[in-house]
Amino acid sequence: MALVVQKYGGSSVQDADRIKKVAERIVRTHKEGHDVVVVVSAMGDTTDELLDLAEQVSPAPPPREMDMLLTAGERISNALVAMAIHSLGAQARSFTGSQAGMITTSKHGDARIVQVTPQRLRDALDEGSIVLVAGFQGVSQDSKDVTTLGRGGSDTTAVALAAALEADVCEIYTDVDGIYSADPRIVPDAQRLDTITYEEMLEMAACGAKVLHLRSVEYARRYNVPLRVRSSYNDKPGSLVSGSIEEIPVEKAIITGVSHDRSEAKITVTGVPDTPGMAARIFRTVADADINIDMVLQNISHSGARRTDITFTLPRTDGPRAMAALTAAQAEIGFIEVLHDSEVGKVSLVGAGMRNHPGVTATFCEALSNAGINIETMNTSEIRISVICRVEQLDAAVRALHAAFELGGAEQAVVHAGSGR
Amino acid sequence: MALVVQKYGGSSVQDADRIKKVAERIVRTHKEGHDVVVVVSAMGDTTDELLDLAEQVSPAPPPREMDMLLTAGERISNALVAMAIHSLGAQARSFTGSQAGMITTSKHGDARIVQVTPQRLRDALDEGSIVLVAGFQGVSQDSKDVTTLGRGGSDTTAVALAAALEADVCEIYTDVDGIYSADPRIVPDAQRLDTITYEEMLEMAACGAKVLHLRSVEYARRYNVPLRVRSSYNDKPGSLVSGSIEEIPVEKAIITGVSHDRSEAKITVTGVPDTPGMAARIFRTVADADINIDMVLQNISHSGARRTDITFTLPRTDGPRAMAALTAAQAEIGFIEVLHDSEVGKVSLVGAGMRNHPGVTATFCEALSNAGINIETMNTSEIRISVICRVEQLDAAVRALHAAFELGGAEQAVVHAGSGR
Repeated sequence: MALVVQKYGGSSVQDADRIKKVAERIVRTHKEGHDVVVVVSAMGDTTDELLDLAEQVSPAPPPREMDMLLTAGERISNALVAMAIHSLGAQARSFTGSQAGMITTSKHGDARIVQVTPQRLRDALDEGSIVLVAGFQGVSQDSKDVTTLGRGGSDTTAVALAAALEADVCEIYTDVDGIYSADPRIVPDAQRLDTITYEEMLEMAACGAKVLHLRSVEYARRYNVPLRVRSSYNDKPGSLVSGSIEEIPVEKAIITGVSHDRSEAKITVTGVPDTPGMAARIFRTVADADINIDMVLQNISHSGARRTDITFTLPRTDGPRAMAALTAAQAEIGFIEVLHDSEVGKVSLVGAGMRNHPGVTATFCEALSNAGINIETMNTSEIRISVICRVEQLDAAVRALHAAFELGGAEQAVVHAGSGR
Repeated sequence: MALVVQKYGGSSVQDADRIKKVAERIVRTHKEGHDVVVVVSAMGDTTDELLDLAEQVSPAPPPREMDMLLTAGERISNALVAMAIHSLGAQARSFTGSQAGMITTSKHGDARIVQVTPQRLRDALDEGSIVLVAGFQGVSQDSKDVTTLGRGGSDTTAVALAAALEADVCEIYTDVDGIYSADPRIVPDAQRLDTITYEEMLEMAACGAKVLHLRSVEYARRYNVPLRVRSSYNDKPGSLVSGSIEEIPVEKAIITGVSHDRSEAKITVTGVPDTPGMAARIFRTVADADINIDMVLQNISHSGARRTDITFTLPRTDGPRAMAALTAAQAEIGFIEVLHDSEVGKVSLVGAGMRNHPGVTATFCEALSNAGINIETMNTSEIRISVICRVEQLDAAVRALHAAFELGGAEQAVVHAGSGR
């Protein structure tokens, strides 16, 4: 007998019929003899409807009240799923994040989990009940106010509960069959991955893969929670996120997949005085505007001029604010100009295998070159190579890399030894 | 500076525009220098929509989950009102019943308030905030589950908070201008009452007046909370419920109003063996079916036959169940037959004045007789006379009594001394 945590997103519970289907799956799992804890997001349109109501009554709603408002959505969906389970003859009880022991920071709209104390859930499980927990919410340890967890909050709720309850698996139900070697809409022969390590999934998620939130994957990695991504529309086994790249025998390490990201823009600050501290001031200016920088490239100084260019990428939606902040600081820092380019795309190759297999970088660059794609910026980690290219070329870049590393079809790609990395 | 509790019902907050109007009134009150605590019901259609969703997923939803579901409605409306107040430049914070310290029994769907510990509300008021509290809900002292309070729950929430916070007044906002001497839709010259005692209001509410729930009036009486009924559509002062009939000087006591009730049915059990305990068994049979009996009439035994008839009234919706229960017990109790009559109406005259003014009963009966209305059953308390008549004659009965006691127009009715009561 196992303890299974399942998470269902908003589209899985968007109406009464979907709710009943979800309830059937939950009861099936329970009948197999497992303890089941289920995290449910708000019904499909609810959050948007509540946001719309809020906008109608107030141009700038206080964050505390926005959290009180939005958490009603998960309360509704969890109670309805519990009712549906009950009508199938099983016991079920729903709990708010607060009742489930999700203790968080006080930052409304983007709270972080501080501690999980799920005693009430354990008691309910011991009584034979299926347990429902409202995702995306908790209670502030300081003010005792209700908080919401920001992006990826429902997935993170599920993983955090799985960790605290020492669950055997945390199943994330979605509308795709699992994690793919690339986006199947771009690469028709993309394969579903049976398994993927935490570190590789982190890189995929950080570089554009949307099936799991970075935050929940990191939480799972920290607490060693096996994460299974499955479709809520069928019974396929999906993909398992588990294990560390350290555990993979060197010979078996592979290239896992290609992710892509259309959500970034590129900013170049030209003619930055090449004195200590100037780069820091540029990044501080952007950070003070509450903007996260992704990739950074600092070019070599223009000879003699003692000036350099600094290029970085950031979320496209933050572009205008970053430009405003830098322009305001221009006189103080003394750069020549700041340029904004939103027509960029980022493509990333991910795989534990690249650590120990020379030649990956060469194969990577050759594949893009053969496809006529120009590399504008490159950035690497131990298990990832990312480049920025023109956004119109992004799909072609994904396909080129996927093919070059033989990620499609029946075999996983194995990198050939021979050329230096 | 006073502490004012205000309660707004579902129609007062049925859409964004109404919510903004309510927020304006609240802020106006606050700007006058008062501490303001506001109880808001769910937005107009929300509760029905949630009930409908519940019905779609489950034929018999567990009560605990129904409470989790329905309380989302008040959470939403209170957060929205708080946001609207904020957009007018004032501070506001919304709280659930649980956060506000509404401790209740465990009976889901019909919980009773056990204790109110509003410390968080006091702290918020001390910080200068307007406080919103979700009505109709609390938390069970035993299971820590969320509960709803049953009928009259939002009004009762407001009164209970007013009592616990020692408020100067509890204002119930509704869609009529106050409490009237009779239903203005039946009696065109019915007058708005400036004030009415707790006991008189209790009688009016118990006998059909719908403007306030019996439960909230009794709670106000117990804790001496001044209750003001006002319209949310204008600034008229409304009617104040305050004081006991004991405080009214004998000479000033008056007849206050006429209430009517179309919601009852009448059951007559004929030929009941006239032996000790038979009446008790009939009433126990009905009570065991969880039905409340209102008026009772036991006729004098048929001479020689040692049998009697017992007539009582009850909510019309409970009629069929009561008939079924009595019919099932017929052999055991030994009565001849049980008759059901749903075409009855109840009209009541209420007023502290009748205690000390002889002749009220006579004037009462003469007024009905002159209007051609037959009295089928009569029942009195210290300050009320009620009769059952044919439901088609109910409106005429109301008008006849209202006129006979001169409750219309500019003067309150004063009862004339002269004939015994």
